[in-house]
Amino acid sequence: MGVEPAMNRRDSTEQNSGQRQIVSRIDIKTYLRDKRDLIDSFLRSHFSMPLAPATLNDAMVYSLFAGGKRLRPILALASYEACGGDGTEILPYVASLELIHTYSLVHDDLPAMDDDDLRRGKPTNHKVFGEGMAILAGDALLTEAFSLLSDSSRLSSPSPRGVLDETRSRIPPSAVLKVIGEVSMAAGAHGMVGGQAEDLLSEDAAPESEKLSFIHSHKTGALITVSVRMGAILARAGKKNLRALTRYGENIGLAFQIIDDILDIQGNTGELGKTTGSDEKKKKMTYPGLYGIDRSAKKAEELVEEAVGVLQSFRESADPLREIALYITKRRT
Amino acid sequence: MGVEPAMNRRDSTEQNSGQRQIVSRIDIKTYLRDKRDLIDSFLRSHFSMPLAPATLNDAMVYSLFAGGKRLRPILALASYEACGGDGTEILPYVASLELIHTYSLVHDDLPAMDDDDLRRGKPTNHKVFGEGMAILAGDALLTEAFSLLSDSSRLSSPSPRGVLDETRSRIPPSAVLKVIGEVSMAAGAHGMVGGQAEDLLSEDAAPESEKLSFIHSHKTGALITVSVRMGAILARAGKKNLRALTRYGENIGLAFQIIDDILDIQGNTGELGKTTGSDEKKKKMTYPGLYGIDRSAKKAEELVEEAVGVLQSFRESADPLREIALYITKRRT
Repeated sequence: MGVEPAMNRRDSTEQNSGQRQIVSRIDIKTYLRDKRDLIDSFLRSHFSMPLAPATLNDAMVYSLFAGGKRLRPILALASYEACGGDGTEILPYVASLELIHTYSLVHDDLPAMDDDDLRRGKPTNHKVFGEGMAILAGDALLTEAFSLLSDSSRLSSPSPRGVLDETRSRIPPSAVLKVIGEVSMAAGAHGMVGGQAEDLLSEDAAPESEKLSFIHSHKTGALITVSVRMGAILARAGKKNLRALTRYGENIGLAFQIIDDILDIQGNTGELGKTTGSDEKKKKMTYPGLYGIDRSAKKAEELVEEAVGVLQSFRESADPLREIALYITKRRT
Repeated sequence: MGVEPAMNRRDSTEQNSGQRQIVSRIDIKTYLRDKRDLIDSFLRSHFSMPLAPATLNDAMVYSLFAGGKRLRPILALASYEACGGDGTEILPYVASLELIHTYSLVHDDLPAMDDDDLRRGKPTNHKVFGEGMAILAGDALLTEAFSLLSDSSRLSSPSPRGVLDETRSRIPPSAVLKVIGEVSMAAGAHGMVGGQAEDLLSEDAAPESEKLSFIHSHKTGALITVSVRMGAILARAGKKNLRALTRYGENIGLAFQIIDDILDIQGNTGELGKTTGSDEKKKKMTYPGLYGIDRSAKKAEELVEEAVGVLQSFRESADPLREIALYITKRRT
């Protein structure tokens, strides 16, 4: 605990940090890649055990390793670091967020939902394993997320950096329970599933700012916000810091979604790995659809600026969070 | 704690209990009805809060109140009582089992799975709400189960018998975490979803006893066993009792499934509320299909007898568990 992320740190003496103009003291691309590798290696180890039937395991692993950015677990790790924790300690918890995110994509892509054939440049789960198995793979990923959050027994085997079991005992069960409660609320009917249901019901409906805001804050916002909160809760952050990080999460969650909508219009299918222009084809309610691209891009930038602003009282250990926020408006995939 | 279930108790002095010939000291039908009412009233109160979008809420509630027997929560309550607890204390935990059971039925009935139109005498969820919403309602029910298991904040409002908050503080977080871990293992890829996946893969396959055993123990057995274990863990049962109750759960889980398979052949659609003969039509692997009805019925009776046998060292408070076991082979719906 209390360890500053030394990895990838540049010399900070030559630079100043400010609220509006953040001068990078870390190389964000290296940071994101290193954290992604860490999460991938944990997930690979977790799913290396044989499971019957093998097809179910294959279907789960297929989508879990289809090239995800691991944004949610990385946010949780960065938030944990910002509150004084050493990010590698809480891998099983943060990895659960990727399982939930992946399950939501598998189910969203189903013919009865968004009916997508392509995801991250690969055929969607049901295209490879069939609809029934894709539904079950999603169900299993969601359930496994709660296994990861609650159960330490399967982690006693050799695991990345060998720090997991030690960690388990350091985080009090009450904090873990709080995290499980928040994750389930963010992922379920009151959060992500509620947003997806509204999205499903709103196809072909006239665009409406209130409804769009509900969909965004629930469908993607809730899980991103709870990712940031998870790190803070596990690091036993105080109320003030938790409040600031919650606002940070809400802001970057919405910014992330707006950029996603813009990329769906402007990006090219090859780079993005999914069919662009699909929102318009499906008559999805989107930010650029309602406000135009320019106003949407400006809104995303304002949200990011505000997100960085609320971290003002945090020290250098919050730099990854600051950089992630800024990176969101720069991403092209 | 330590309170014997006085409700529905007949005068036990005039009767003897034995291992093989259980003489009823409770009226099991009244017991099952009273517990079902208790669980229903908790669930009704829990789902009385408005939720957006309303259609999602409607879809969840539709299947949750479609006439389920509440067997799993009742088993958890009875197991809690058998270990010295007062069954009404742990309603939020045991209710979560019904949410998981219901979600599994909603997803199993989908066209991509068993493609059933009728469940408990009513149109299946996707027939009423559409496939996409049925998938989401299942997802939401599963996720809500973990909210119920982990979160007490939403329970501070008036709740059945007003005992919930008090309870929450009496059960240590570590016991709750253990329960969440076990439930997620029993419900996910290592349990129920794994069984359903094997079932899906085995349609049209040649009947095979090992595969059938895997499907039964995973698809229905795991959740029934964990229901019994939940009650014991929450009552802080010792290892010996937990072991006995686990064996009880495994036995009645399999007996329950065998009777289910027999009823699918012998029952009538009106009484059962679902299309009979559907297993054969779908070429499902079943016990009577593999061993014939007579041998299957005998096997179920042996399993029940053994289940009652392992409870030998338990006192009168385990009578409901004994009676439930015996009731399984007598049920007609």
